[in-house]
Parts: sequence; structure tokens; C-alpha cells
Amino acid sequence: MAERLVVIGGDAAGMAAASQARRRRDRDDLAIVAFERGHSTSFSACGIPYWVSGVVPDRDRLIARDPATFRESFHIDVRMRHEVTGIDLDRREVVARDLDAGGEVREGFDTLVYATGAVPMKPPWARTGIAGVFGVQTLDDGTALLDWLEREPRPRRAVVIGGGYIGVEMAEAMLQRGLSVNLVEQADQPMSTVDPDMAELVVDSLRGVGIQIHTGLTVTGLEERDGRISAVVTAEGPMPADVVVLGLGVRPNTALADAAGLPLGPTGGVRTDRRMRVPGVPGVWAAGDCVETLHRVSGLPVHVPLGTHANKQGRVAGINIGGGYATFPGVIGTAVTKVCDLEVGRTGLRERDATAAGFEFVSVIAESTNRAGYYPGARPMTVKLIAERPSGRLLGAQIVGWSEAAKRIDTLAVALWNGMTVDDMTALDLGYAPPYAPVWDPVLIAARKAVDALAGTGRR
Amino acid sequence: MAERLVVIGGDAAGMAAASQARRRRDRDDLAIVAFERGHSTSFSACGIPYWVSGVVPDRDRLIARDPATFRESFHIDVRMRHEVTGIDLDRREVVARDLDAGGEVREGFDTLVYATGAVPMKPPWARTGIAGVFGVQTLDDGTALLDWLEREPRPRRAVVIGGGYIGVEMAEAMLQRGLSVNLVEQADQPMSTVDPDMAELVVDSLRGVGIQIHTGLTVTGLEERDGRISAVVTAEGPMPADVVVLGLGVRPNTALADAAGLPLGPTGGVRTDRRMRVPGVPGVWAAGDCVETLHRVSGLPVHVPLGTHANKQGRVAGINIGGGYATFPGVIGTAVTKVCDLEVGRTGLRERDATAAGFEFVSVIAESTNRAGYYPGARPMTVKLIAERPSGRLLGAQIVGWSEAAKRIDTLAVALWNGMTVDDMTALDLGYAPPYAPVWDPVLIAARKAVDALAGTGRR
Repeated sequence: MAERLVVIGGDAAGMAAASQARRRRDRDDLAIVAFERGHSTSFSACGIPYWVSGVVPDRDRLIARDPATFRESFHIDVRMRHEVTGIDLDRREVVARDLDAGGEVREGFDTLVYATGAVPMKPPWARTGIAGVFGVQTLDDGTALLDWLEREPRPRRAVVIGGGYIGVEMAEAMLQRGLSVNLVEQADQPMSTVDPDMAELVVDSLRGVGIQIHTGLTVTGLEERDGRISAVVTAEGPMPADVVVLGLGVRPNTALADAAGLPLGPTGGVRTDRRMRVPGVPGVWAAGDCVETLHRVSGLPVHVPLGTHANKQGRVAGINIGGGYATFPGVIGTAVTKVCDLEVGRTGLRERDATAAGFEFVSVIAESTNRAGYYPGARPMTVKLIAERPSGRLLGAQIVGWSEAAKRIDTLAVALWNGMTVDDMTALDLGYAPPYAPVWDPVLIAARKAVDALAGTGRR
Repeated sequence: MAERLVVIGGDAAGMAAASQARRRRDRDDLAIVAFERGHSTSFSACGIPYWVSGVVPDRDRLIARDPATFRESFHIDVRMRHEVTGIDLDRREVVARDLDAGGEVREGFDTLVYATGAVPMKPPWARTGIAGVFGVQTLDDGTALLDWLEREPRPRRAVVIGGGYIGVEMAEAMLQRGLSVNLVEQADQPMSTVDPDMAELVVDSLRGVGIQIHTGLTVTGLEERDGRISAVVTAEGPMPADVVVLGLGVRPNTALADAAGLPLGPTGGVRTDRRMRVPGVPGVWAAGDCVETLHRVSGLPVHVPLGTHANKQGRVAGINIGGGYATFPGVIGTAVTKVCDLEVGRTGLRERDATAAGFEFVSVIAESTNRAGYYPGARPMTVKLIAERPSGRLLGAQIVGWSEAAKRIDTLAVALWNGMTVDDMTALDLGYAPPYAPVWDPVLIAARKAVDALAGTGRR
């Protein structure tokens, strides 16, 4: 009889694991059942803001593979709208509820992949059920929000709560749909994924297109009128709203794991080893937004919910389940985002992270351009480097620019991944041609400046 | 009395060396004289095609720093239009001819920087002096060509000889100026900087805009009528031409070095150590297009005339002359170019280089897109990887794409620089957001495919 693999969660991590396992073991050898409580498998949550804004024309484009494809091409028994409600490690079975038809099913497993993803942070005031308040985590969230935006009376005033990637992207999406937008952030700066000096450029850009930004402002409640959202209550008074978008971040979805006794780490995520096994629980694997992972620079566990990690972790789990060998060696915190016409990239540690991790460091900011200064379309590009002192090892980098800027963070990410020093980096053989870079690439200019700063000869 | 530094050649390498030395030693300590036979210092030769095409509006934009800036801000005694005609190592002086005023000067040195750049390859048939035949190495070349293009009778038919970067860029420039263009390449493919399978995409693009490409065609002479170029003579007969652009590559300009007894390497370039000293000749340094350097992957000496290397080597020499410490650790052959709307990047070894260097390898080509497939503006992107077998170490990479493609070669260049294997690379934490990449970055997709190829499970 075939070994039985049960996957909890049919999004990126779970389905990557299932597909990779299938790729190595056929169905006579391994039966695969995947439970997904939602309406879709393997969709791009990161694409939701662009679908809401209208940049991406329809929802279906965000779906990488539908359940039918997994069933037919991969022979994976995908059970949609089935919510797993319990894991019994002793009996080696999961219990799932059929959300549409009702009733409960039990499914035995030899091997289990826990890939339940993340759930949105919801402070007490957000747990209201007031119409017109939306998260943006699932395609169903997006559908509900779009439906609300198109229903009479048409919402005109949006308040986005939370100034991280999703908050900023949703603020822009609301603006593009013609709403007035207030963005509320409790901390001193939105885009806290980059240091304040770099975030200033982003804030200027957001304000430039007409988004009202409120930092250091605490939300204390939501007000309704006639069953609809009417205002966001803040420490400075009510802020009128016809629609509220919550972008408060997410936390690992570990309720089931915790109940079953899977080990959770200090970030709240499920712990795994490098092969994505849950340590101490034979035959159980975990991957994606529900797990914590190693930050390779700080050496600390982190929770970084991103589709790219979920896919990689799922793939690693699936290769191993399939009898191969693969490891997930951790992350360095690389991320890119588009804010209006501005491109933002970051990798490694911010100044505050470096301080918290106990590093001594210098940081430099270098202004340059994306192309040779004389080439048409040359736009400013700002590169920040944080380098350990005295070793010169790169600890973190941030880029803000107007064009062809964000993905250059990958150059710095690979340098950081390999433990390069800024001195080593000054010699890097990077591509040069006038349409693509000045003769001294912005990355090299920044590295040179960091070398000077380490030698005490530079000016900040 | 101040030590005396003489620099031969006032372009990127020479002036970078001079400026860096000055930065560390003031004029009471180090007197600096730089001889330049041309009319300009520190100009962008790589920008000439864009100036000729009209994309860059005027010549002066290509000049990074003029002689007056070097004199006034750096206290460097720049002698323009002075051609050094001899180096006397015993008397430690150089002899230079004043090309405008006539006459000869002698200048003693304690330290010498040899930075004479490169000279165009000229087969015997190209040494004719026929009007209408141009190189594109100096700003004066560009001025002469532009003057010719605007003079009556207006040239209508251009023949570009040589299908490397400059040839291809000049072919496009001629087309943009409204001329019909024939590009003649002796080898089997133009853009031989990438493998034939990748070059095909470039050839398609060039043909698509109307450039006639002739490969495997040998030029045997030039014909003139009434003192003007009238045709390029090829093995298949004459090809009518009103203007001919020579893009046959360059070789190190070592006549003076050779006469003075400086050691030349197998590529014909001046040999240096890692600090850019000429070995065995105390006090003499060399940098830029006149030197050979180490290819870090093959371990062989190479001649790679590129402004970015010249600047780095000059900087290294200058830091060392200034009393600091810096090394130039060699190159890996990274280059990017724009061909019509196509972007091309390459790094490391091509298949033929890998074979010649004795490596066993696999190569894979992965098709992907620059952005998430559903995001507007997503365009195809082709990534080729060459990986050593069985180690999996990356040996080379090539990218061809339509948008936001070329500079992604830097990601691969840094991976290659650090000796990463394709297996290691599959875990790289690269930036992901729908406007900038699919959830599996094209680089990661290619790395996965290479891992499969190494395991014998992949399909080419």
C-alpha cells in the first residue's frame, strides 16, 4: 500500500511540497491528500494590491495553478474548502471539516506537511465585523473589498491602517481607484523595513501623490453608522472612513500546531530543521508562512512571511519527502517593493537590527544614478550600506530609486549571503554600459564610501 | 623636493591613478604630471555610439572631468596634446612631443603610471586613409564621423565591420540616423560574447529592425571613388558603402612599453601584479586597457578593455602610490549591452571558454519573465547557466531579455565571483514582488534547472 502524505494548506508552501514529492515518487508509492480551507490553491497574495488597484485586470490571473491541475497533472487529491480542525499525532490522522457540505472527515497519514500560512494581526478593536473593514490576505478578501468599492453608496474615503509593504501598496491601490487615502501608522515611520533616512524618500513620494500619512498615531477603535464603517478612532480623534483596509502584518498560523504539540519558536512560528522537518516529531514537516527560519546575518530566528521563502521551503520539504536531499539555509531579509514610481529594495540588517544583534558598524549613504549620467532616463539612486566594524563585512543594504533600482538589491544580497566585506566588494566585476550603469556602479560607489568610513577617512 | 609622478595617458586609468594618489598625498609631497595626446581627459568611450546616434545630445556630456578640473581641483599638471614618444628607465624620464606647438619636452619621474589604453585593430586593408572610414575609439573619431554624416552628399549606406559590442551598437546608431546598415562579421555569429544559442536572439532583434547581417564573411579591402569610400570588398563581392565604421576590436597599446622593456604577457598586454605594479620594474605601474589581467574563473590572463576595469585598476594603482593598500583581484568577464530593445548580459565563461579551459560542464537555458507573469509589462527573459560537473560550481551565465534584464547578470556575477554552486544558488534570498520578479526569480529557475541537469534528471 502506498505511503500516505497529508498536506495541511493548499497554498505556495503546501503545494510546492506536494508537487516536489510527487515529482520523485509516483502515486503507487505515495498517495497525497491536500486540505485547503479557501477557494483557491497557489495564488499570489502579493498580487492582491495590484488586482485591487486595477493594474492586474482579474482575479484568476493571480492563481498559479488551480486544484484541477494538481489533481490531473500531479495526482494530488486536493480537498478544497476543507478546514483541518485537529491533528492527532498518536493515531496519525487529521480531522477536517467540509466547509461547504458540512460534516467531518478523518484522513490518516504517514507523513504530514504543516503549511497553514499566516493569519492577519487583529488588535481587539479590529474584531468588529463592521461592514467595510477588510484584510488583504486571501483572494476572497480581495473580492469582498472590490465588491464594497463598487457598491452604492460608493466609498470615497479610505483609511489604511499599517504602513508596511501591504499597507503602502494598498494605500496606492485605493488612490488609483480614485479614493482619498489616509495611511495610519503607529510607529514613527511607515516602511519600517528600511531605516528612517531611507524611508523619508518613500514618505515624500507617497505624500507627493496625495496620500495623507499619519505616523506615531494609535488607532483605538472603529465607528459604524447604519451598519457601515464611518470612522477610524485614533488618539487624535475620529478619522472619517467609508472603507478601512487593515495592513497590520501577519503572524504564523499555529493554532493547530500548538494544540498538537508541535514545537514553536520564540517568534511564534513552528520550528523546523534545515530540511524542514519538525524536530522531535518524526514524519512531520512544516513550511511557509507558519514557520520561523534562521536569519543568516544575525543568527537569530525570524518570521518572514514571503511567497518566495514559502515556495523554497515547500520545495525543500517535498524533495526530502520524495527521497532527495535539500536544505533551506535561512534568509537574509531581502525584499523589494514599488511605491508609486519609487523602487525600494532592502537586504540584511537595518541599523536597529544590527544594534539589537550586538554588532558594531558603520553606515553610509551614496547618491548615484541608475544609468550613465549622460544617458537619457538617468535617475537618482540612493544606496545605503551597513558594514561591520572593523571587519568591513556587509551586514545590510538598502536601495531607493526611481527606475531600474529595486532589483539591484540582489547584487548586494548575494554579496551579503557570501559574507563579503565592503573592501572585497569594491573589486566586483559588475556589468557596465551607459544605458545600465555609470562606469562606477552605484553598488561600487557605496562600497568605496563604506571603505572610507571604516578607515575613518569618509564623510557620512 | 617633492617626489615626481608621471602619468602616460589622461583617460580613465591614468587620471583615476593620479586623482587617488593626490587624494592621499598633497602637492608638496608628490608632484603629478599627466601627458595626454588627445583633446580630452576621462571621457566615456562607451558613450560614443549613443552620441553618434543622437541619443546623447552632445560630445561634452561624455567628458567626466576636463583638464581644468584636474589642474585646479587636483593640482595635476595635465599636458594635453602631448604624445609621449619614449620612456628612459635608466635616466627615469619620459620624452613627449607637443602635437600642437611642436617641439619636445623631457620630464623626469620617480614613479611612472603607464596608462596608454588600447589601439584599434587594423587589418592591412583598413590602413588606407580613404575618406569616410572611421574608428570609434576617441571623441575625435566621433566628431569626424558625425561631420561626415552631415556633409553633402549625405551618406545613405553604412557598412559596419565587426559584430562585437561596438559594432552592434554602431550599427544601431547608423540605423537611428536613417542610414541603411550592413553589418559584416567574419565569424559565424555576431555578439560572440555570448554563446550562439543566446546570440540568435540578438540576431533576430537586429534583423527585426532592418539591419542586414552578414556572418562568416571576410572583408578583403575597401574601394574608393573620387577620394571617398564607395564599397567594402568582401569574399562575396563589393558591398556599396558611403560610410564605413570599423568595430574590429582593440589591442593593448604597448609600443612604448615594449620599447622600454616593460614585460608583456601572452595576451599582448603589459603585465602587472595585483597592486598594479609592473613586476621587476621598480616604481613603474600600469593600468587600464593597456594591461592584461587575471580571469578568475579560467585562471588565465585576459585582455578585457572596459572603462570599469580601467577605473578600478587606476584607483588601485593610485591608492598604492599614495601610500595605501589596494589590490585588483582580476575579472570574471561581466558585460552588459543594449541591442535595439534587447538587453544582453554575460559573465564568466562561455561554453567555448569552459571547454578551452578544460572544464567539464553542463549548460541549461531557462525561459522566464522579468516580472510576475500577471503583472503588466512582463516580458520574456532567457537565462543560460554553465556549471562545472560534477561540482556544480557556476562557471558562466548569460541573460537576454526585453526589459529589466541586463543588470540581473550582476546577481549571477556576484554568485560566480564567490564560487557558488548552482545548488547553493537555489536557496539565494533574492527580492520578490510582482512588479520586479516572478515568485521564483529567473535566476533561481535557471539554478534549479542546472541542478536537475547535473543530477541527470533535467531536460535541456
